[in-house]
Amino acid sequence: MKKNPFTSKRVEKLVDQLMETYQGDSGINFIDASNLPVRSRILIIIEELFEILFPGHTGNRTVASTNIRFVVGDVLCQVYTDLVEQIERAFAYHCRVSACDDCDCGTKAHNVTVALLQKMPDIRDMLKGDVKAAYEGDPAAISYEEIVISYPYITAIAMHRIAHELYGLEVPLIPRMMSECAHARTGIDIHPGADIGKNFFIDHGTGVVIGETSVIGNNVKIYQGTTLGALSFKRDAQGKIIKGGKRHPTIEDDVTIYAEATILGDITIGRGAVIGGNVWVKESVPAGVTVTTGNPDLLYRKTK
Amino acid sequence: MKKNPFTSKRVEKLVDQLMETYQGDSGINFIDASNLPVRSRILIIIEELFEILFPGHTGNRTVASTNIRFVVGDVLCQVYTDLVEQIERAFAYHCRVSACDDCDCGTKAHNVTVALLQKMPDIRDMLKGDVKAAYEGDPAAISYEEIVISYPYITAIAMHRIAHELYGLEVPLIPRMMSECAHARTGIDIHPGADIGKNFFIDHGTGVVIGETSVIGNNVKIYQGTTLGALSFKRDAQGKIIKGGKRHPTIEDDVTIYAEATILGDITIGRGAVIGGNVWVKESVPAGVTVTTGNPDLLYRKTK
Amino acid sequence: MKKNPFTSKRVEKLVDQLMETYQGDSGINFIDASNLPVRSRILIIIEELFEILFPGHTGNRTVASTNIRFVVGDVLCQVYTDLVEQIERAFAYHCRVSACDDCDCGTKAHNVTVALLQKMPDIRDMLKGDVKAAYEGDPAAISYEEIVISYPYITAIAMHRIAHELYGLEVPLIPRMMSECAHARTGIDIHPGADIGKNFFIDHGTGVVIGETSVIGNNVKIYQGTTLGALSFKRDAQGKIIKGGKRHPTIEDDVTIYAEATILGDITIGRGAVIGGNVWVKESVPAGVTVTTGNPDLLYRKTK
Amino acid sequence: MKKNPFTSKRVEKLVDQLMETYQGDSGINFIDASNLPVRSRILIIIEELFEILFPGHTGNRTVASTNIRFVVGDVLCQVYTDLVEQIERAFAYHCRVSACDDCDCGTKAHNVTVALLQKMPDIRDMLKGDVKAAYEGDPAAISYEEIVISYPYITAIAMHRIAHELYGLEVPLIPRMMSECAHARTGIDIHPGADIGKNFFIDHGTGVVIGETSVIGNNVKIYQGTTLGALSFKRDAQGKIIKGGKRHPTIEDDVTIYAEATILGDITIGRGAVIGGNVWVKESVPAGVTVTTGNPDLLYRKTK
Amino acid sequence: MKKNPFTSKRVEKLVDQLMETYQGDSGINFIDASNLPVRSRILIIIEELFEILFPGHTGNRTVASTNIRFVVGDVLCQVYTDLVEQIERAFAYHCRVSACDDCDCGTKAHNVTVALLQKMPDIRDMLKGDVKAAYEGDPAAISYEEIVISYPYITAIAMHRIAHELYGLEVPLIPRMMSECAHARTGIDIHPGADIGKNFFIDHGTGVVIGETSVIGNNVKIYQGTTLGALSFKRDAQGKIIKGGKRHPTIEDDVTIYAEATILGDITIGRGAVIGGNVWVKESVPAGVTVTTGNPDLLYRKTK
Amino acid sequence: MKKNPFTSKRVEKLVDQLMETYQGDSGINFIDASNLPVRSRILIIIEELFEILFPGHTGNRTVASTNIRFVVGDVLCQVYTDLVEQIERAFAYHCRVSACDDCDCGTKAHNVTVALLQKMPDIRDMLKGDVKAAYEGDPAAISYEEIVISYPYITAIAMHRIAHELYGLEVPLIPRMMSECAHARTGIDIHPGADIGKNFFIDHGTGVVIGETSVIGNNVKIYQGTTLGALSFKRDAQGKIIKGGKRHPTIEDDVTIYAEATILGDITIGRGAVIGGNVWVKESVPAGVTVTTGNPDLLYRKTK
Repeated sequence: MKKNPFTSKRVEKLVDQLMETYQGDSGINFIDASNLPVRSRILIIIEELFEILFPGHTGNRTVASTNIRFVVGDVLCQVYTDLVEQIERAFAYHCRVSACDDCDCGTKAHNVTVALLQKMPDIRDMLKGDVKAAYEGDPAAISYEEIVISYPYITAIAMHRIAHELYGLEVPLIPRMMSECAHARTGIDIHPGADIGKNFFIDHGTGVVIGETSVIGNNVKIYQGTTLGALSFKRDAQGKIIKGGKRHPTIEDDVTIYAEATILGDITIGRGAVIGGNVWVKESVPAGVTVTTGNPDLLYRKTK
Repeated sequence: MKKNPFTSKRVEKLVDQLMETYQGDSGINFIDASNLPVRSRILIIIEELFEILFPGHTGNRTVASTNIRFVVGDVLCQVYTDLVEQIERAFAYHCRVSACDDCDCGTKAHNVTVALLQKMPDIRDMLKGDVKAAYEGDPAAISYEEIVISYPYITAIAMHRIAHELYGLEVPLIPRMMSECAHARTGIDIHPGADIGKNFFIDHGTGVVIGETSVIGNNVKIYQGTTLGALSFKRDAQGKIIKGGKRHPTIEDDVTIYAEATILGDITIGRGAVIGGNVWVKESVPAGVTVTTGNPDLLYRKTK
Repeated sequence: MKKNPFTSKRVEKLVDQLMETYQGDSGINFIDASNLPVRSRILIIIEELFEILFPGHTGNRTVASTNIRFVVGDVLCQVYTDLVEQIERAFAYHCRVSACDDCDCGTKAHNVTVALLQKMPDIRDMLKGDVKAAYEGDPAAISYEEIVISYPYITAIAMHRIAHELYGLEVPLIPRMMSECAHARTGIDIHPGADIGKNFFIDHGTGVVIGETSVIGNNVKIYQGTTLGALSFKRDAQGKIIKGGKRHPTIEDDVTIYAEATILGDITIGRGAVIGGNVWVKESVPAGVTVTTGNPDLLYRKTK
Repeated sequence: MKKNPFTSKRVEKLVDQLMETYQGDSGINFIDASNLPVRSRILIIIEELFEILFPGHTGNRTVASTNIRFVVGDVLCQVYTDLVEQIERAFAYHCRVSACDDCDCGTKAHNVTVALLQKMPDIRDMLKGDVKAAYEGDPAAISYEEIVISYPYITAIAMHRIAHELYGLEVPLIPRMMSECAHARTGIDIHPGADIGKNFFIDHGTGVVIGETSVIGNNVKIYQGTTLGALSFKRDAQGKIIKGGKRHPTIEDDVTIYAEATILGDITIGRGAVIGGNVWVKESVPAGVTVTTGNPDLLYRKTK
Repeated sequence: MKKNPFTSKRVEKLVDQLMETYQGDSGINFIDASNLPVRSRILIIIEELFEILFPGHTGNRTVASTNIRFVVGDVLCQVYTDLVEQIERAFAYHCRVSACDDCDCGTKAHNVTVALLQKMPDIRDMLKGDVKAAYEGDPAAISYEEIVISYPYITAIAMHRIAHELYGLEVPLIPRMMSECAHARTGIDIHPGADIGKNFFIDHGTGVVIGETSVIGNNVKIYQGTTLGALSFKRDAQGKIIKGGKRHPTIEDDVTIYAEATILGDITIGRGAVIGGNVWVKESVPAGVTVTTGNPDLLYRKTK
Repeated sequence: MKKNPFTSKRVEKLVDQLMETYQGDSGINFIDASNLPVRSRILIIIEELFEILFPGHTGNRTVASTNIRFVVGDVLCQVYTDLVEQIERAFAYHCRVSACDDCDCGTKAHNVTVALLQKMPDIRDMLKGDVKAAYEGDPAAISYEEIVISYPYITAIAMHRIAHELYGLEVPLIPRMMSECAHARTGIDIHPGADIGKNFFIDHGTGVVIGETSVIGNNVKIYQGTTLGALSFKRDAQGKIIKGGKRHPTIEDDVTIYAEATILGDITIGRGAVIGGNVWVKESVPAGVTVTTGNPDLLYRKTK
């Protein structure tokens, strides 16, 4: 038998080298920081929250009128416990990096979790509008059930409406972790900071990006590949990007944005405007206007 | 110890509020409707169907000439049982919403499942052509095995060819659930209604959208970000979208469509045509023609 | 009870038909080829490698200064065993298809695995630069921890830096399997052959494609939907695509490429150049130049 | 590589031989009898029933006064569904073997399950007495919690009290499957037919056997290795054992039976009697009497 | 926060101390001996073998006449692969400790596994007799199905008949591991060396011990707590026990042994003899004789 | 479809009845007492401790000289964290029931866990002696490896030596939970309080009971079914059993106790004594003496 080249000596040396790269290194390892929120736990919490939003749709539990009240109460208490733990970790992390030492992360975590859960009935109401918007906006949609059970958009918007609440409650890390879970599954990337109105619908969805300070009104419909992005970043004297500040578009009520359109900067797309596919918009658009790529971009040439 | 703010009283009230949002609400909860198809079961069925299409490739079972016949027979019978149950749920759901009460969902489910499974040899033949098309169309492709084992496109097209059969057999809900499972994993969104010919290849794939009434011929090759979409929707007197109707493109044999191209409406791209990257096409293109963005879009400006 | 239509006779016949489609068929089944690498094992190996790169971030293990050395050593030895097995399968597959019969796949697998693991400290150093680039390039980024814990880009680039090492070591199949695992989760498709410099950052990421022979310098930043692709393929006398050859762009240091840009062919984007969003580039761009779509593509028309 | 001796030919032949042993064979295979109850499902049902009997003790769910009502309601509805399915299988099996064809197994299963669940409050009351008996009867017992959390006897008696209800309701197969689950875990073998009074306690328990027609009064305490068995079996003209009939002892109130005692036949151990360890009893014992092995069984002999 | 007393220093010291106890230590650790058989794998193999012996009884797979042939063939091939691996480890272990170095463990493992599997039809025939014996010997037994599905004895005898074949084929370690798996679940301890005839039945079973060199004829029935043991051990000049040699009883056809009886040494219990409960036998018993404890062991004394 | 008889009204009523049985009820439910130790966690801790005692024997991890130090360090830190949590729950429970309110359960849990882990090298030394005793005492034992890998006795004694340490450290609940885990698996019931010397061996083991205040010397060997029990319990004026007090036997060095023997009360079995099978001992036995059942208990009677 040949000698295993991964000898004890080599292993020990390699471990030493890795240990060195971990030293004094902040941010890309999690040594002695076991109270960061954990992705696998967030995924379980998402499952539980979705059980409340769409009882029975996962098929994990059979839900009937006999037991629905028990299921909802049971899941609510369970998600409460799970969320408090992760949110407390997020607050404690924030305290550690901001050298704050007189706040009560535990109490804050409890209060914030209650606040989120008390919003769940409102979130359900919002989602009813979103499902209706999908049904009315997609000729291929056959029923509400089909939309809830299979449209990736529903995953993305339900996750967003929850993450956005936590963002408003100033919970660190977790809102972004949640929105990235939806992004990974749907290809739709909505920053938890985005403020989205009623009856929203994204068709297909892959490649959609909605930036942190976007504001979207009611009855807005957008298609795959659309970006609501920032145009350029403010920098300080040292050339460092200045964090924060409104830098993404405001989309007013009843706007439709077709596939692959890109809308950049803190501009406003007026009520009822239509942004054509593939259009690149960097300036505000008045209400009621339709914007398309103006040039006739079909030029026929014979092959060979 | 501080008092837990999520008191019994608060929990009870919240449950009551949620119960209210569930009342009389059709489509975004699944109370008393336990016979809807279940996503987690569909995922298992997909695994089983793929074991038949690509024996051994999951590595869950070691397949050799000694046992291949047993494995295939065993998996076939297993997937039969699993599929019948889910398809019966789908038919029963359809009866419930269409107030039909004299059909025999169980018998239909059995017949439809037999019909699908009997198509599996043909589907395998189609997939052989698709793998060959990938090998011949991608200079980075090294072997057939590499394509089957790693290309997301293979997941998408294999799933589509199965979902499309079920769509043709008029099974509700499940075809779309299947195609969305592939969409979530590959970023390729093919509606199960799309009619796709032999030797099809999608390179990279993320962001591709192929609409319900698309018809695609043989030897067609498309790239990431391409959309075969609908241009606009017919509406009835009340302004409601009219469901159904051919509204997506027909792509004839031997067409190539480059990245990010968008082809909209019930138009025809003629045999052998080439659609350039990023092109936006809303009118039919004759056979043999190459369409590109006609304007020279490279304008150099010095920075600063 | 009605008769089950999936009778023994039908099952047997269907199995026979499937057996026939498996005959003499190379590449889309894995009969008698049980030593191909297995996707589910590769996923476990990725988890283990990420535990070394970002100790503690999965939350599977609590990592503290007390136990970090043990964890790293333990995981290293574990991933060594797991990788050797899969890599040996990949080499053995390659020998089988290339009819080579005097090489020692086992020894090669051991040596290559040692070589990869010994690169892990360097890979960590590269990743530190990438995280820093993300922090400095994204105004929404709040901390290094948030980036590692939630940005899909980190998954993609960490996976790439590992897969690229294995690609350099000429391991068949596995590098592509790894990069497709990251593609499935993030929508970012980086071929393991791509050569990427320090402090790289991809924002949002969905739809990004970076081809096999791309070369990317230091401090490059790109946005969602960007393609670094091949323009056209060389073909031999029979019209078959010629595999291999430099066919993707070279991006020099300090270049920024905005969303949905497409850069095609073996061209060079010079140091410090800026490629605007949605731009389609097929020719080299000098250093310091900004390329945008030159036409004013906003044309307002009143609706109706 | 050496040839695998398990050739296709050998496999096929072996399968044929096994198929032959399955032919016309009733009782030791389950072909075409898929509706027999399933052990793994029974184990899950037991877990659920125990969650109702001892809320929170498994640690699977955190139970507090806030959520206890929801948990109990939820588990009750879940166990209802699970039990009905298994019990219907058991009844259907019974109909099949007894060639009965006009009974409604489904309705019976529903009714019997309701009947069992409605007994759960009474069973809990019985178990309170049993725990108290253990506490008062075992000098090593420190608290009620310790007894519930660790004494194998509690598993055995709780399981028995449930199985005995189902036995009384004439459910086939399942009562015995339940009691054997407890037997496997505790070494205590109580036939579900045994009729056991209040405040019962078995210390240690391994090797205890309590036969089908045993009747046990209140406040009875027994030790490990005790058998309440049948003396001999009645046989018919053909020498076949006659099934059924009272053939095990009746133990009146307040009896204590020490370790390894064996009590055989349809005899009565009178109120307050004490049966010494290792004693072999085949005749009734009057109330208040102590029975011990009468011979001085200590004989000292020097070794060698 | 208080200091964690399990400091790095303490951990390191403790690891060093443990490392020392592992040095030069044979038999109670498994360092560098990774090819020992593994209990968890043996448990899986047992499940697979039982699927062949009692198709469908685990409920893991629904077995019908349509798929039974596929299931059996599939499981046979799977268990073949799994068994060969574990048996090769057992042989390799044996070679290592016996310093043998010219045997071909791999080939032996293949041959032995084929030999075992080819015995499966015979083992099924034996088990049919055992189930029938249980049915005829236990008045509480209601059907063959109930016996297979719930009697611990069936687990023990099926496991034994397999382990005994492997013992005869001189496989090290694994036969004993198998019999201990059954012992753990049933409390019945049958050494794989024991030679057991047809139509065997053990009622209740807990505490039964059947030693390595026991020989049991046909139609034997024994009860819980029975021991067939060795009387005393032969020792060599140094006082060490001499391994091997017939030292347990021979039980001829048609013998019945009641509960808690103990039969010790290489003696013979003649055909048709009956050994009473609790009897202690150290000398051979002629055919047809009934042995009971002769003394009237019921002495009544009034309590107090 | 027939009406489900488990109506909402019935469910609600049943839940109410159960809620009532939970009221004011101490000890057989765990409401608001979520910090009791949890059996499933204890099972994981046992797995971890066994990984330290017998590295590699579970086969979960491949242990070689290259990685053994990492594995042991890693598992030690993991088991430390897990144990501290469960032990803190046990102490907190104890405080709650004893109305103590100034102790620091957390600190105690840390200290006690360190104390246990520091005993692990000694426990390993003890176990080496136990394995040796098994090898020398059982003619069927073939190697040390076979004993560790398959003898239930090893599970029981290893578990006991750990539980006994925790018992000595006055940890509530957990020692008994641990010993019952071993009891369930092996049928050997050793109270964690029992004080057991070196080179101990129990053959077969099912039914062995060793009481809380038993003291066992070195080189003691016992067989299945043996009880070291209490004779009678002291009671207080109210007739309640007085807890605690030495009430089980002391077994001196070099004693052998054969199967089914019962030794009761605070008596002493002198050095080198031999207790015969089935003997019932209630008085001390001098050193060197052999005790057997003195009466010739073989009485032959012709059958009929």
